[in-house]
Amino acid sequence: MSKFQQIAIEIEKYIKENSLQKGEKLPIIDELKAKFGVSKSTILKSLDMLERKGVVYQVRGSGTFFRGQKPRGFVSLLSNQGLTNNLNDYKITSEVIKFCTSKPTQEVAHHLNIGMDNELYCVKRIRYLNEEALSLEESFFNKSIVMYLNNEIVTGSIFRYIKNGLGLKLGFSDRYLHVDKLSAEEANYLGLEQGEPKLKVETIYHLKNGQPFVFSKINYSYKQSKFFLQTHNDSFEVTHA
Amino acid sequence: MSKFQQIAIEIEKYIKENSLQKGEKLPIIDELKAKFGVSKSTILKSLDMLERKGVVYQVRGSGTFFRGQKPRGFVSLLSNQGLTNNLNDYKITSEVIKFCTSKPTQEVAHHLNIGMDNELYCVKRIRYLNEEALSLEESFFNKSIVMYLNNEIVTGSIFRYIKNGLGLKLGFSDRYLHVDKLSAEEANYLGLEQGEPKLKVETIYHLKNGQPFVFSKINYSYKQSKFFLQTHNDSFEVTHA
Repeated sequence: MSKFQQIAIEIEKYIKENSLQKGEKLPIIDELKAKFGVSKSTILKSLDMLERKGVVYQVRGSGTFFRGQKPRGFVSLLSNQGLTNNLNDYKITSEVIKFCTSKPTQEVAHHLNIGMDNELYCVKRIRYLNEEALSLEESFFNKSIVMYLNNEIVTGSIFRYIKNGLGLKLGFSDRYLHVDKLSAEEANYLGLEQGEPKLKVETIYHLKNGQPFVFSKINYSYKQSKFFLQTHNDSFEVTHA
Repeated sequence: MSKFQQIAIEIEKYIKENSLQKGEKLPIIDELKAKFGVSKSTILKSLDMLERKGVVYQVRGSGTFFRGQKPRGFVSLLSNQGLTNNLNDYKITSEVIKFCTSKPTQEVAHHLNIGMDNELYCVKRIRYLNEEALSLEESFFNKSIVMYLNNEIVTGSIFRYIKNGLGLKLGFSDRYLHVDKLSAEEANYLGLEQGEPKLKVETIYHLKNGQPFVFSKINYSYKQSKFFLQTHNDSFEVTHA
């Protein structure tokens, strides 16, 4: 982890320990420099990172301000860290319905940019939030990258294992969302009625080198799931004139 | 617009004109420097911006690669630019159901951080995508910031007017999503049945100085709307140990 990432963590700790409120000002850059014993450029990089992460906003000539607490119980749509990290105040459990190796369908082969002969791990499971069904999840792992999974792993946080166990470096993801009606099968797994609303979220996860390696389809129960995301305009200002 | 933002636009043009495909490599930094006649640090800032924007990904020691075309007809959940900019290949029209000034409800006052005495513009409208109902939208504008709206403006792209007409600088937004069932009234406006699925998206838009100034609630038809978002891990890597 680079210096500015460490300092960003320290600044987040500072915000927490001092119970900053939404809109409250952080110490000025000189104070932060002195406090953490690092250069101005490191502080600036840390603040930029925290701004992109939605923790603070910077106002030119005025300072840096806290954006406020993340709403509790909401799933961040920008997180690539999996549900367990995302809702870490909550009890998240999983019931594995299917765990197997297989060849890809055309859809999965396309998303993972592999041939029809490649082996996959496929995992289908229900996720529970405080013991109520939250989502029905089907994931496909390129077995030449995620070389090993077992029953114990797929019962817990697969993403934590991929990161900490396998040491794979997650890069970026493409995420597609549709609102639709539950099929009879999906409704049955989620304890709902056929035709009731669901949010279908499909994600293609890529390694840092750009290689897609996991494709997941998640159907969220409309009863349990709430999502949030924070945007910052600086990243999205470029538009063709 | 700063230099690196201009160069970012030029690089996007280059990608388009050269019809780069997903995963295809961009020219190396020295070539980009020579091509655009700017310093290495400007090129690096432009590439970082395009990476955050989801246009490219950078692989250390290997280069910069195109992430691929944005999917057509999908609404970007990260955009603060409004629907008209978001779906600029499509015909977006609006039917204004209500346009008035009023005092805020407690909910709106809370989100906009104003007193119950503040005047608001409120706009309720149906948005159509190629003449089919896409969403039912209710927005509340702090009138001491958005000082003037009229019938013509609220029939078009309000965000374009806010930016180009009023010259207001959008900063960041907080967005909350819920899947739910349509009420009878909502279903009626969207040409659907009561109880059918909807995606409710609530957004609080802030100016660059951190002041919240628009609160909008949008109910999207499940028939028309598809959403996407691209994440990049670099922005979200810091997590408390």
